[in-house]
Amino acid sequence: MFSIDVYKERRDKLKKAVGHGLILFLGNEEVGMNYRDNTYHFRQDSSFLYFFGLDKPGLAALINIDEDIEIIIGNEPTIDDIVWMGTQPSLTEIAAQTGINKVAESNSLGILIKKSLSSGQAVHYLPPYRSDAVIKLSDILEIPNTKVKEGASVILIKAVIAQRAYKSALEVTEIDKAVNISNEMHLAAIRYSKENVTEKYVAGIVEGLALSAGGTIAYPVIYTVNGQTLHNHPTNDTLKKGQLILCDCGAETAMHYAGDLTRTFPVDQKFTSLQKEVYEIVLKAEQAAANSLRPGIRFLDIHKLACEHLVDGLKQLGLMKGDVKDAVSEGAHTLFFQCGLGHMMGLDVHDMEDLGEQFVGYSEGMVKSKEFGLKSLRLGRELEAGFVLTVEPGLYFIPELMDMWQAQGKLKDFINYDKLAAFRNFGGARVEENFLITESGYQLLGEPLIKAVSDIEGLNRL
Amino acid sequence: MFSIDVYKERRDKLKKAVGHGLILFLGNEEVGMNYRDNTYHFRQDSSFLYFFGLDKPGLAALINIDEDIEIIIGNEPTIDDIVWMGTQPSLTEIAAQTGINKVAESNSLGILIKKSLSSGQAVHYLPPYRSDAVIKLSDILEIPNTKVKEGASVILIKAVIAQRAYKSALEVTEIDKAVNISNEMHLAAIRYSKENVTEKYVAGIVEGLALSAGGTIAYPVIYTVNGQTLHNHPTNDTLKKGQLILCDCGAETAMHYAGDLTRTFPVDQKFTSLQKEVYEIVLKAEQAAANSLRPGIRFLDIHKLACEHLVDGLKQLGLMKGDVKDAVSEGAHTLFFQCGLGHMMGLDVHDMEDLGEQFVGYSEGMVKSKEFGLKSLRLGRELEAGFVLTVEPGLYFIPELMDMWQAQGKLKDFINYDKLAAFRNFGGARVEENFLITESGYQLLGEPLIKAVSDIEGLNRL
Ligand SMILES: [Mn+2]
Ligand SMILES: [Mn+2]
Repeated sequence: MFSIDVYKERRDKLKKAVGHGLILFLGNEEVGMNYRDNTYHFRQDSSFLYFFGLDKPGLAALINIDEDIEIIIGNEPTIDDIVWMGTQPSLTEIAAQTGINKVAESNSLGILIKKSLSSGQAVHYLPPYRSDAVIKLSDILEIPNTKVKEGASVILIKAVIAQRAYKSALEVTEIDKAVNISNEMHLAAIRYSKENVTEKYVAGIVEGLALSAGGTIAYPVIYTVNGQTLHNHPTNDTLKKGQLILCDCGAETAMHYAGDLTRTFPVDQKFTSLQKEVYEIVLKAEQAAANSLRPGIRFLDIHKLACEHLVDGLKQLGLMKGDVKDAVSEGAHTLFFQCGLGHMMGLDVHDMEDLGEQFVGYSEGMVKSKEFGLKSLRLGRELEAGFVLTVEPGLYFIPELMDMWQAQGKLKDFINYDKLAAFRNFGGARVEENFLITESGYQLLGEPLIKAVSDIEGLNRL
Repeated sequence: MFSIDVYKERRDKLKKAVGHGLILFLGNEEVGMNYRDNTYHFRQDSSFLYFFGLDKPGLAALINIDEDIEIIIGNEPTIDDIVWMGTQPSLTEIAAQTGINKVAESNSLGILIKKSLSSGQAVHYLPPYRSDAVIKLSDILEIPNTKVKEGASVILIKAVIAQRAYKSALEVTEIDKAVNISNEMHLAAIRYSKENVTEKYVAGIVEGLALSAGGTIAYPVIYTVNGQTLHNHPTNDTLKKGQLILCDCGAETAMHYAGDLTRTFPVDQKFTSLQKEVYEIVLKAEQAAANSLRPGIRFLDIHKLACEHLVDGLKQLGLMKGDVKDAVSEGAHTLFFQCGLGHMMGLDVHDMEDLGEQFVGYSEGMVKSKEFGLKSLRLGRELEAGFVLTVEPGLYFIPELMDMWQAQGKLKDFINYDKLAAFRNFGGARVEENFLITESGYQLLGEPLIKAVSDIEGLNRL
């Protein structure tokens, strides 16, 4: 946890922004994998962490703005809890850790909410993403499961984003730590890669490093020879000579801040000449995008700039043709780059995604596109100092998509369909780094991790 | 997957056992960690795996016994699914993998159920342990969230247990594989243990090995110097000279069968004399219990036998006194051994725990005790050939519990309260192995893993 004052200040600011009513924050519960008591690792809700810092299941918090009362809700430990889970602090002690001196037992939450509702107070809550939260809200608000999500408070959502979007120095230090652990994961990923080991073998070592560093993974490790598949899971297939590996992985620190890096490298010590050509197009686009980061520029425009660099490279490869800007504005590049250039990062790897990408990544009056390609651009808004984000262009050769476009003759003025065959089994390439937007421009987070072809080829395999 | 015939035979047997009506199996969904799309690793429901073998989220299955129809329910992949998750089989192809040729889209599940209910057919389903299953069942059965669990079918529960309790040769081979991976995890746990590394450092390496082997962990890794806490999580505290480590961890194979082993060993290369004494009491109890395994004996009686061995050793240590059998029947040993001797193991580490321990671990007319100590004995029934189970006695010195009993003067004819002070910081010790009950007795699963003091002391640290 940060110091108590950090959480108190955040809550005071939140109360001012929301103005009136009752704010209900539900902490997360444990989730059973294959039965109730065999749980996944516990992950606290990020907004609960941000405003209270309490990293333990079974908690909720109420902020009554009108009466200026804060309450932590939970259950007192029993002797069974102590036998099974060790010495436990009392609920009062837990609340004191975040500077709150009022507590209530979980079974009184419904009554407290009802009291507020019947006195005409608005109850503000964030949209739930876990089903147990839906059930709990359905119960205490006495509304059907299907009505829970739509009852979430837009005022609260906006107030939370207005704080969490700007990272404090303390937070940047944590993210820096996360990126540095992620760097170690990537170096291991490259070093352990070789013919005849399985994807899962290397991915296991990489995930183990995140755990050994005291936290966990910020998201499921992507380590795959099918880099064209954007969210692939590692398989038990063995690596083969000539294949290209895409590894997208990042650590979450013990305080739950994320890192999110991608590197692409060959199974062999050296890239093939085609792999090198494609990789260097991506790398150039990444560097150009990073160099454009500064307050006041729209990330949507940096996305377009990166796309132009990709198209330019694809033209040199012979895969695309025509005017670069026209190709991008028509969306021709989305045959090879189907997703967005990056996203905010913080307590969540896609920061605040549960609060809605329109609110997080776009400003009022700038509506997120529904078009293929742009609909996956999580961040479009004008950048401001304090934002932390990823830059991650890529080129992805998806046979099903290429076949579909070719059959339709889609945007054929920009695409040399007869040249695609050589790329059916190429896979995909991506380079991803994490940046803080500063008053004067940007700052790379973490120590620089190798990305030049010569550096990757120079790192000896185990 | 096993061959199609395996699943067909299991379903045919199930249909006969249930007799009439509609059986609904819900496969598991993915669960978001900190937002919907950042998911924990997917774990399919074990009964769904057992009867269908399909290891993919978003599926359900209907077996209409009266009309002899089997249907797999899910959604056809879209082009977005292919872009994000790679080439996907069609629903029909998925169903064919388990020998079923009828499919239906997810949104028709409610209609199919309603048709059955309105024609007077009983709908059998297993008790849900995930909240999303509760919401789904509440929706399709049109009952409140709170009524879902009590509507689960006891006939179906019993019929499922009657099959899953007896492991086939194919299943035993998988469990053997899981135990052998678990062995490697334990050897690494011992070898990497040394002064000044954190618990999480070693636990991370251990979990990484389970992942690298192609599956995952069967349950959260316990690696702790506070072995007295039964379900402790590894911390970022560093190991210190003189401490005793309890490591309870096991692999889940790619086919989702579990191993579950515990070893206890010192941070240093050598046990202290007190650690050795306590450890050897536990080891002797474990060996005696294992040697008693055979068809026809109640596991409750083996539990009692192990408890007697523990009390016998504690008397020699000076911590207990009086008649051994009396001490056990009064429950005096539960100050040091608060839980049960073992549990069934298979697709779940606590096999079928979601179906209810009374049904899984106890026979009709043998009711699971609610007493402290025995209430945590998950298995009491008469053993039969084909059962796979753990044997895991331990001694746990829990300061809070010792203080509570001492203040009450509880069972003071059996406990030398004046001798407890020396054990306040001892921690805990456990030894756990996995066994198959055979026609003639028992068989240790996996290769033997070191457990003698001399062998543990002889394994060089890294
Ligand atoms: Mn990213
Ligand atoms: Mn066990």
